[in-house]
Amino acid sequence: MRTNPSLTAVPFTLVRLTDKFWAPRQAVNRRVTLPIEYEQCRVTGRIAAFRLAWKPGQPNRPHIFWDSDVAKWIETAAYSLQTHPDKQLERSVDKVIGLIAKAQQPDGYLNTYFTVVAPEKRWTNLADNHELYCAGHLMEAAVAYFHATGKRQFLDVMSRYADYIGQVFGRRPGQKRGYCGHEEIELALVKLFHATGERRYLELAQYFIDERGQEPNYFRLEREIRQLKDPAPRKSAHWDLSYYQAHQPVREQSQVVGHAVRAMYLYSGMADVAREATDPTLLPALRKLWQHLTQKHLYITGGIGSTRANEGFTFDYDLPNESAYCETCAAVGLVFWAHRMLQLTGASEFADVMERALFNGCLSGVSLDGRRFFYANPLAVYPAATRGAAGHVAGQRQPWFDCACCPPNLARLIASVGQYFYSENATTAAVHLYGQGETKLHVAQQTVRLQVTTEYPWSGAVKLRVTPERAARFTLALRIPDWCPSFTLFVNNKPVAVKPSQGYVRLTRTWRGGDSIRLMLAMPVLQIEANPQVRMNCGRVALQRGPIVYCFEQADNGPELNDLCLPPETRFIPVHRDRQLGGVTVLRSHAWRRQPQPWRNGSLYRNDPTPRHRVSITAVPYCVWGNRRPGEEMLVWLNRASS
Amino acid sequence: MRTNPSLTAVPFTLVRLTDKFWAPRQAVNRRVTLPIEYEQCRVTGRIAAFRLAWKPGQPNRPHIFWDSDVAKWIETAAYSLQTHPDKQLERSVDKVIGLIAKAQQPDGYLNTYFTVVAPEKRWTNLADNHELYCAGHLMEAAVAYFHATGKRQFLDVMSRYADYIGQVFGRRPGQKRGYCGHEEIELALVKLFHATGERRYLELAQYFIDERGQEPNYFRLEREIRQLKDPAPRKSAHWDLSYYQAHQPVREQSQVVGHAVRAMYLYSGMADVAREATDPTLLPALRKLWQHLTQKHLYITGGIGSTRANEGFTFDYDLPNESAYCETCAAVGLVFWAHRMLQLTGASEFADVMERALFNGCLSGVSLDGRRFFYANPLAVYPAATRGAAGHVAGQRQPWFDCACCPPNLARLIASVGQYFYSENATTAAVHLYGQGETKLHVAQQTVRLQVTTEYPWSGAVKLRVTPERAARFTLALRIPDWCPSFTLFVNNKPVAVKPSQGYVRLTRTWRGGDSIRLMLAMPVLQIEANPQVRMNCGRVALQRGPIVYCFEQADNGPELNDLCLPPETRFIPVHRDRQLGGVTVLRSHAWRRQPQPWRNGSLYRNDPTPRHRVSITAVPYCVWGNRRPGEEMLVWLNRASS
Repeated sequence: MRTNPSLTAVPFTLVRLTDKFWAPRQAVNRRVTLPIEYEQCRVTGRIAAFRLAWKPGQPNRPHIFWDSDVAKWIETAAYSLQTHPDKQLERSVDKVIGLIAKAQQPDGYLNTYFTVVAPEKRWTNLADNHELYCAGHLMEAAVAYFHATGKRQFLDVMSRYADYIGQVFGRRPGQKRGYCGHEEIELALVKLFHATGERRYLELAQYFIDERGQEPNYFRLEREIRQLKDPAPRKSAHWDLSYYQAHQPVREQSQVVGHAVRAMYLYSGMADVAREATDPTLLPALRKLWQHLTQKHLYITGGIGSTRANEGFTFDYDLPNESAYCETCAAVGLVFWAHRMLQLTGASEFADVMERALFNGCLSGVSLDGRRFFYANPLAVYPAATRGAAGHVAGQRQPWFDCACCPPNLARLIASVGQYFYSENATTAAVHLYGQGETKLHVAQQTVRLQVTTEYPWSGAVKLRVTPERAARFTLALRIPDWCPSFTLFVNNKPVAVKPSQGYVRLTRTWRGGDSIRLMLAMPVLQIEANPQVRMNCGRVALQRGPIVYCFEQADNGPELNDLCLPPETRFIPVHRDRQLGGVTVLRSHAWRRQPQPWRNGSLYRNDPTPRHRVSITAVPYCVWGNRRPGEEMLVWLNRASS
Repeated sequence: MRTNPSLTAVPFTLVRLTDKFWAPRQAVNRRVTLPIEYEQCRVTGRIAAFRLAWKPGQPNRPHIFWDSDVAKWIETAAYSLQTHPDKQLERSVDKVIGLIAKAQQPDGYLNTYFTVVAPEKRWTNLADNHELYCAGHLMEAAVAYFHATGKRQFLDVMSRYADYIGQVFGRRPGQKRGYCGHEEIELALVKLFHATGERRYLELAQYFIDERGQEPNYFRLEREIRQLKDPAPRKSAHWDLSYYQAHQPVREQSQVVGHAVRAMYLYSGMADVAREATDPTLLPALRKLWQHLTQKHLYITGGIGSTRANEGFTFDYDLPNESAYCETCAAVGLVFWAHRMLQLTGASEFADVMERALFNGCLSGVSLDGRRFFYANPLAVYPAATRGAAGHVAGQRQPWFDCACCPPNLARLIASVGQYFYSENATTAAVHLYGQGETKLHVAQQTVRLQVTTEYPWSGAVKLRVTPERAARFTLALRIPDWCPSFTLFVNNKPVAVKPSQGYVRLTRTWRGGDSIRLMLAMPVLQIEANPQVRMNCGRVALQRGPIVYCFEQADNGPELNDLCLPPETRFIPVHRDRQLGGVTVLRSHAWRRQPQPWRNGSLYRNDPTPRHRVSITAVPYCVWGNRRPGEEMLVWLNRASS
């Protein structure tokens, strides 16, 4: 039994979602996206690469991050197999795992690019070459597949690889004191530790985290060595240690910097090590980083990363809408980090951000039909400005990307989204997210069944039915989200007046079979302002209802969305539309728009105030934008006339 | 005598400005900027380059556009010598001209870079290498110096060079059917034609204009030849024929595209040829291009060029403020083009834009002390966003640039700004710009003295005193600017009711010595809206009074300028401040600003409308921004609460 007072996430295998929001997305993810991922890995040569048969001059030359794409497909498939057994899928995975196993080198090394394309470059450029990153994703996949099937082959392969990595890296004489330029292996090693019980993997994760940013700086040394060999190397666009979060030891870091996905994976790994190694020295840094991120660098969608230039953070309060990067992977990474902070602390501020990212900036990454993807998720799109831009920064979802990190990252998140809903420890079961379905909790030394009935996120009314095996005293902690201004609570139809602490109402009592809870979260339409230092959003508001952030699309509101202006005291009416966009609540109201007539002469500028007229406007959830008439305008932050 | 009914600009040598706006700027330009230009040309090796003594491995390797910087210094010096004789300056110029003359090759060729650095590349890359561009600037300088001093040496050198160019380029067998990737030589050849009377130079200009964009495309052919010799050439960032306005024959062009300075110089050359060769087929294209520029691509400051990427035009209505390029040279080029269109047509729409660029987007390019320069002239500056950026895109003026086109371009404009004020032909004298001073006009076959008394641009009251040699009937055309909603006019103290035609009130009468005119142009503070398709300015207004566009600076209004919001019905009070910023009229009013208190907890987002408080605000002329506390925020387009 865990003695750590922190919470443990209830695994998604025990969380059955039967709601109309996540369940259909999981089905599309499983039926459409997962096969597309496999097919893309196949046709691009990513799977064949493990045959190690590529020769110079042949097509489909392996790329340094290809292994990670196959790994994320396996990981997604593993999650899918856990909830929806599928022999054919399992056979496909087994075949690929067979290839992977054969690709492992005698010393345990396992990387297609550095085995067939550039074997002489093994471990020579940790900063940029994603070697340990690929290893990490393969480890995550191996752990997931082991959990799904009980088959040990892949897990053993990756344990061998991890053992080899543990020989190469460390502080002993003859070892490299390096770490990966793209963090990922840290959190993966903690998963490997959990799956195998081998503490050395946790210690290796700890080493990678502790060593990062120490002096003499490994990336700088590594670069000097490369330059000795090749005085005119390929210029790195990102030669800045903060890009890799390697500019100072992690415990001294207090500001989120550099590449956003890298940062999220590092902080996730730090949180894992903080918890598993019960290292109290990491949490203060994590709290500072969290505060910096959420107070100065977080888009309202839960997206992060303000520019394409470094795919990451710029300066405080710099949150441009049209040129936002907001990589899907970064929002996914934020969910990972927030989730870990939530288990460590039990504080709802982490669940609030996790929910924000999950329902908005992550989900926008995939079309409703599961076939098209955003890499960057801007908060405003003006089609002419994206014309010609394809791939990473596009005004509409793309079928795939050469650098294909995002689609499978989101797919593995959706396939396992149940794990973000509940946590538990010996005395408490916590409900972080509300979604219709049924869950098995382990609390008070027994299994407690929890049935949830709700239309969340479209309604704040939630019914919970608690069924312990036997009557028992424990705490049920229900999150009161940051967006909720007031709530009422009934236990067995009797009103309960209880104030939330750390963002949760805690119902501690002896629970018996058939006990029921009714939680009514007020879910008004919020007109959110950004901090005055966010210069691009001054005079603008964004709409949010429940966890859902809204946007305006050309399909509903015509073009020139920036010219819409909310009159003072505007109220929005939520209207549920079962048949639109997979079933969504839209927000309806009126706004002003300048009359076109005075501009018909083609003037670019005019002296007199243009008369305005009143127009109907409709906002749709940001997560489903671009699903009707792709290639049109979209806008999250709407101009408002100040009252 | 000219038979063309169009107007001829009155040369600046006949226009003495004694006002408080231009005269002090001309003095600083002459006393401070001109010596800085020379010194920069000297210390960087630009002047020494004409000794042709540079050897590989030595510092100060000549660059392809260096010759043009020296040329613009000579041109500016020549203008200065015309109004302010200065023996020492003249000796300096003579010395440099001596070097230039010696640098001329036996065949007439004259270019430092392609003589000492890459002689084998002569005429091999017209698209990118600025060879004919440099020739053009040297020709302009030679013409100016000839006018200033009567000395023919430089003019003869450049005539020889032009003759050589005329042998190399053309449609005869053995000639290259090329033209320059950076237009400039076209308008320069027309000046050379004027100075020498040699019509072949006009015909060469005509050839360059007619040949541009014809198929087979010269730049494409040239590139294919280069690629045959060097299969992996330096990748051109701008390989797009529209960048060079060479994507179609000029008469078929109807949209402004590509590099903004290039475009302005081309259109100026086209206007010159249209006029001098009395070619009626160019004007329709010029009118379409003008309409496209002014209706879809013109910043309110008269700046042009929406992005650093191509230093030029993007898509229609794309006028970002913070990332505006608005190169000083492009605004100068727009003045050139507008001025030529004005002479061709006599229509005030050209004077309106010329005035807008002159008083705003050009002048902002130099500090009041004449020592620092903007290359890009954005309409909003947020210091953190420009941190790290130096040189071309900077948040404050810089001492110089490696690519130093802008400072001397603006200097030659300021030195000769008088030429933009008046035009004349046999029967009409036109006043385009108002500025205190005295002018000699040639109209009705005599010299007419015109004395102007005004505080323009700070006041719209203008007194003109007309003194012909003898009483004579002619038309005095006075421009009623586009920003002026109403005016009153008195001739010899008697009110005159006359409607403007083509933007000018035309006073046709027998003028006698001592006749006086009083023109009172109403000069309200305009709150200008941009077309709803300019998405970045929706909900915002810019202030203009007379020809002066205003901006808000942090020095007057504190930081977070975007959070200022003009209440409905706001009025601005003009206040003249003699001792501030060289003597300017500022605009004072009040605005709302969100209270900081609700944000003190560090929130990035809040649900409730933040209370606002009323603050005093002050706007200063855009042309003088950044002269007090450089490195602060600046904003032209202010948020407005719609009424």
